[in-house]
Amino acid sequence: MEDPQKSAPIAVFDSGLGGLSVVRHLRQILPHENIVYFGDTARVPYGTKTRATVAQFALETAGFLLQFKPKLIVAACNTASALALDALHADLPVPVIGVVEPGARAAVQLGRGHTVAVIGTEATIGSEAYLRAIRALAPEQAVVSAACPLLVPLVEEGRTCADPIVSLTIQGYLAALRDSDVRVLVLGCTHYPLLREGIAAFLGPNVHIVDSGRETSLTVQEHLAGRRALSPAATAGTMRCYVSDNPGRFRQVGSRFLNEPIESVELVEAERYVGVRPPGRTS
Amino acid sequence: MEDPQKSAPIAVFDSGLGGLSVVRHLRQILPHENIVYFGDTARVPYGTKTRATVAQFALETAGFLLQFKPKLIVAACNTASALALDALHADLPVPVIGVVEPGARAAVQLGRGHTVAVIGTEATIGSEAYLRAIRALAPEQAVVSAACPLLVPLVEEGRTCADPIVSLTIQGYLAALRDSDVRVLVLGCTHYPLLREGIAAFLGPNVHIVDSGRETSLTVQEHLAGRRALSPAATAGTMRCYVSDNPGRFRQVGSRFLNEPIESVELVEAERYVGVRPPGRTS
Repeated sequence: MEDPQKSAPIAVFDSGLGGLSVVRHLRQILPHENIVYFGDTARVPYGTKTRATVAQFALETAGFLLQFKPKLIVAACNTASALALDALHADLPVPVIGVVEPGARAAVQLGRGHTVAVIGTEATIGSEAYLRAIRALAPEQAVVSAACPLLVPLVEEGRTCADPIVSLTIQGYLAALRDSDVRVLVLGCTHYPLLREGIAAFLGPNVHIVDSGRETSLTVQEHLAGRRALSPAATAGTMRCYVSDNPGRFRQVGSRFLNEPIESVELVEAERYVGVRPPGRTS
Repeated sequence: MEDPQKSAPIAVFDSGLGGLSVVRHLRQILPHENIVYFGDTARVPYGTKTRATVAQFALETAGFLLQFKPKLIVAACNTASALALDALHADLPVPVIGVVEPGARAAVQLGRGHTVAVIGTEATIGSEAYLRAIRALAPEQAVVSAACPLLVPLVEEGRTCADPIVSLTIQGYLAALRDSDVRVLVLGCTHYPLLREGIAAFLGPNVHIVDSGRETSLTVQEHLAGRRALSPAATAGTMRCYVSDNPGRFRQVGSRFLNEPIESVELVEAERYVGVRPPGRTS
């Protein structure tokens, strides 16, 4: 029997616009899916905040997307995935896929016993979520990590690896990792893929770079295919974006993350998502 | 007749911990005043957000402080002062002093006809609030400005002017200002005083640096003295801090801004300030 959910959209949320670097891969890998995105730009960033606050914000942000009756929700934010995935699983009535576990799985596969390094926000690294996800798959795996708080504002400002401030910052954060036996580096923040080239150049050709957003998109494909819930459409999927503040800045900065122009962005007032509880898992 | 408000506290709010660099001057200039501070660390920063969102957040944050029956509220945040001062004046039943007007006044006095430069967040510079405040005092005054979004995260991470990334960033933002006829630079963000030394060194000895937080503290002193509302206490004033998230990080990072240890920090849950309207001006 055909799944009535096939034509339902994939819902994606993030603290802001970083999640668009995940959507970029989703659109490439699953071009026929409709996507609805909500960026919580009024309260961005989540990366310096505590588990309780991130969980509350993530539930409200994901909860807003339930009105579109999605077949799946993607937590396209490493901090929310690291700190709030259990809360999202418990409270939302649809499957939720975060970016940490897919990134961890790819890292273990590529690491083959050598050290895996993870970089991310203060909150993601402090949570040790990647460490736990990697050790769940490979208990003996050596893991090192570093919080790189400056990389998000560098990317948001539009700076690239050609900027000496960016290269100096990358060197400062990664020098210690380079000098250990690292074989794999996980980009544990959705902003970092925009600096991938400079990071890869600094670490050298022997280090594999894992983009958690790409791995997550492959996991979404696998999940939908396994449930026969891939879109039956033959035409290109649509994309609608919602933000809690500053649609203009989202459109302008976000298109670099998405790698295509952002057409439709709608502002969501606080009353429509703050303090609104999701309806809860029905089963 | 003695003002019954004399012993009431001064309330200070900010998007996060930057306002503590204002409180540092308040405590030096008015050592007998009791201070109650609220930092909206759950939704920090305000500097990339729109006027509507900043005004809503500022009203909620300042509104929380009304329960302490303050004699005065200080908007110790350049972005909130630039974007929300009118809304605060209209909605709060006590006097509100922002940081923009005092900084602008000092800049005009020191400029003596030469160019005044203002640096701040994207939102503060985009609002042109300093430009308007300066031109209201001196209609012919030449003003240049630059948004310096990277300076806040650099300071929050604990980097100082000794860090080559900081000096390169300061050079990048200020090179064009240095090459014009600038006589005064206004630090239009409460994080920037922590980089004052490097900024002053780059601009050279002929440029006066205005710290809006210090000027605001002098304005507060003048305001209270004019109303005979200075604290009659002979002992040192107390300080109580409230934050909407992450008291540990506030205590640790904030003490560099305050230049003294932070003793008392209490977490405020969302229900106590989000969506809570201030009681309104009674007169």
